[in-house]
Amino acid sequence: MFLSELLPVKEAFRVIDENQVRMGVEEIDLDDAYHRVLAEDIISRFDSPPFDRSAMDGYAVRAEDTFGSSPENPITLRVVDSIGAGDVSGAETARGEAVRIATGAPIPEGADAVVMEEYTILSGDEIRVIRPVSPGENIAPRGEDIGAGERILKAGTLLRPPEIALAASAGHGRVKVYRKPSVRIIVTGNELVDPSGDLEPGKIPNSNRYTLKALVESAGGVPDVLHCGDDLEGVKDEIRRAADEYDAVITTGGTAISKGDVVVDAVKDLGEVLFHGVAVRPGKPVAFGMVNHKPVFMLSGYPVAAMVQFDVFARYYLMRMQYPEYRHRTVRRTCTGKVASAPGRTEYLRARATDEMVEPVRSRGSGIIRSMVESNAYIFLDENKEGISEGEECDVILFDSMII
Amino acid sequence: MFLSELLPVKEAFRVIDENQVRMGVEEIDLDDAYHRVLAEDIISRFDSPPFDRSAMDGYAVRAEDTFGSSPENPITLRVVDSIGAGDVSGAETARGEAVRIATGAPIPEGADAVVMEEYTILSGDEIRVIRPVSPGENIAPRGEDIGAGERILKAGTLLRPPEIALAASAGHGRVKVYRKPSVRIIVTGNELVDPSGDLEPGKIPNSNRYTLKALVESAGGVPDVLHCGDDLEGVKDEIRRAADEYDAVITTGGTAISKGDVVVDAVKDLGEVLFHGVAVRPGKPVAFGMVNHKPVFMLSGYPVAAMVQFDVFARYYLMRMQYPEYRHRTVRRTCTGKVASAPGRTEYLRARATDEMVEPVRSRGSGIIRSMVESNAYIFLDENKEGISEGEECDVILFDSMII
Repeated sequence: MFLSELLPVKEAFRVIDENQVRMGVEEIDLDDAYHRVLAEDIISRFDSPPFDRSAMDGYAVRAEDTFGSSPENPITLRVVDSIGAGDVSGAETARGEAVRIATGAPIPEGADAVVMEEYTILSGDEIRVIRPVSPGENIAPRGEDIGAGERILKAGTLLRPPEIALAASAGHGRVKVYRKPSVRIIVTGNELVDPSGDLEPGKIPNSNRYTLKALVESAGGVPDVLHCGDDLEGVKDEIRRAADEYDAVITTGGTAISKGDVVVDAVKDLGEVLFHGVAVRPGKPVAFGMVNHKPVFMLSGYPVAAMVQFDVFARYYLMRMQYPEYRHRTVRRTCTGKVASAPGRTEYLRARATDEMVEPVRSRGSGIIRSMVESNAYIFLDENKEGISEGEECDVILFDSMII
Repeated sequence: MFLSELLPVKEAFRVIDENQVRMGVEEIDLDDAYHRVLAEDIISRFDSPPFDRSAMDGYAVRAEDTFGSSPENPITLRVVDSIGAGDVSGAETARGEAVRIATGAPIPEGADAVVMEEYTILSGDEIRVIRPVSPGENIAPRGEDIGAGERILKAGTLLRPPEIALAASAGHGRVKVYRKPSVRIIVTGNELVDPSGDLEPGKIPNSNRYTLKALVESAGGVPDVLHCGDDLEGVKDEIRRAADEYDAVITTGGTAISKGDVVVDAVKDLGEVLFHGVAVRPGKPVAFGMVNHKPVFMLSGYPVAAMVQFDVFARYYLMRMQYPEYRHRTVRRTCTGKVASAPGRTEYLRARATDEMVEPVRSRGSGIIRSMVESNAYIFLDENKEGISEGEECDVILFDSMII
């Protein structure tokens, strides 16, 4: 695979975008909505709060009754009722009267402010108020947060706890979200064995089955892993079945020169290989195709290459299946060291970023898993960029910004 | 609750730290290890790679045989064998010989380098090599990534995909991790009703049951939600049961002035209230206690106050139950606006941060859920800090840095 035969990264993303499949929609209980993505606008069914309510524990009063009060000159009011949260007072607060009120309870008729409990002295059925309140003070007015009929959340929004709180307050106990993609992971490689056993000569522990499962989870997918050998017919059967039963397929390995590149050959037979070989480092042998309108990402067998290929291409796609607004976001950091890079190739350099700096992680071989362990970010080097000088600002993709 | 009666935030954290419970350990399949936290050091059982292996598809050769080769002056070698990944060659590579080799396959005896396929021309059982290789070129030497017996991961490490890859490569298909805390969420409040129904006067949708569940999930806990009324005996029964059956208890609301602060009273009766009222804004009425050696966080009924109290105190504790190294981390950002703040009180201001700037979100009432929706960070104002000027750098806690 010579550089001249490799697809530029930008082109690879164009191909991927053109073949982006979106997940269908499902209605779920708001209980299960954490980190799901809205597939509908949410319109409020209610004002929130649905009535003028007290923001404090204290006494609902007519504000003008309290004007001029002070510790030296307290004003006495008669307590005519008491309202807990969830209750409604039948009493109207007349001049010279107060209604004891809990945080969250509805303001009774007649009252227009709440005196905090701390600024009152209770004796019998009277209070002495030692500090004046203005009209509206300590009242959360009806509709302050949300008006009924208002669009409060847009389709495409990631549901964090605050969005979930808002949807519930707006009267929605169920929401429509994008389904999570089910992902068949096919790990190929005759050399791969259970890590817990002993190693026969030529065999290595199958780490990819664990790594890819975790990667798919981190991208919001529902993974199902299979290990299969390197033979073309076996791989073909599994990819055919996977493209029937799952929303997306990811393979690793399958490059056995004696038999050709079995995975790519299998996808060619079953559907279409849209690219094979990208001008990216690490990870250039990555391939992408479509079988039965399902995406198939063909990653390397090497764990580090597979992780980077996943992050760059498969993660982007899986995230966007269910979270259309997702993009790989870059931030700017000052590079602590010099980085060499050949133009014509996009690089995703393993790196350790702080809030201000980024340090390239030096072992760059695609077999060096430890270099990924030491990393929390990629330095992104565009194909036109010829390296970075020490102290130069550069583009960085933080791993934590890539997960859902 | 006057300012002088409130516990400083630092003191509240001291109390929390003194009462920090750690989760026990469980052994799990590495398949289930994503974002769990190691409770043991991981020692490698193997070298990784376990043998010298080819980093490329190509031909294993003696490097010196290729010296001086070029397109104009190719050197011819005889192909004596072919090794796929997982295979072992019985052949020894003698002078003038080559062994076809797949990426990942073990280097045969006698060979000391791999010529990439691209730099060879195959005809019959011979190749012409058009570019020399140095000894060791395109070979990943045994133990390059990990040496057998090496400590590759420390207890306390968060297992991301790279750590999972490393553990598997080191021969571990199961790992010991901290158990996730089970958390009983008790939402109190007679005013709270199912959001999907209609609203009777004085009632509001129960958003806290959804919000707290999502918050606990975001902190790596396993939530189980219960709604109960505001009566002391009912609340007490539920807290007693929760402290028996769960690892932690979180309550919201329960302030009904007619009946006192039922949740705090219930915890006083059942165990110990260690603080009630913290010099923090928003969220000062937060309380913390221990019942049956289980932590009980008593949060406000107001959604925003509850979210902030959760993030500041309960999240910190829950995370550290299973991830001892967790801390709330601050980063520095330039504030786009002026912020006023009274000394003597720690503030967690809702804010919108970019990679460089932070903008305070202006609606600060504790009922304004929308202000949390607009936020992705807190501006952290120490109790000694008297506000922030426009353009001043300040401490910021990014929401994304607080989740597991």
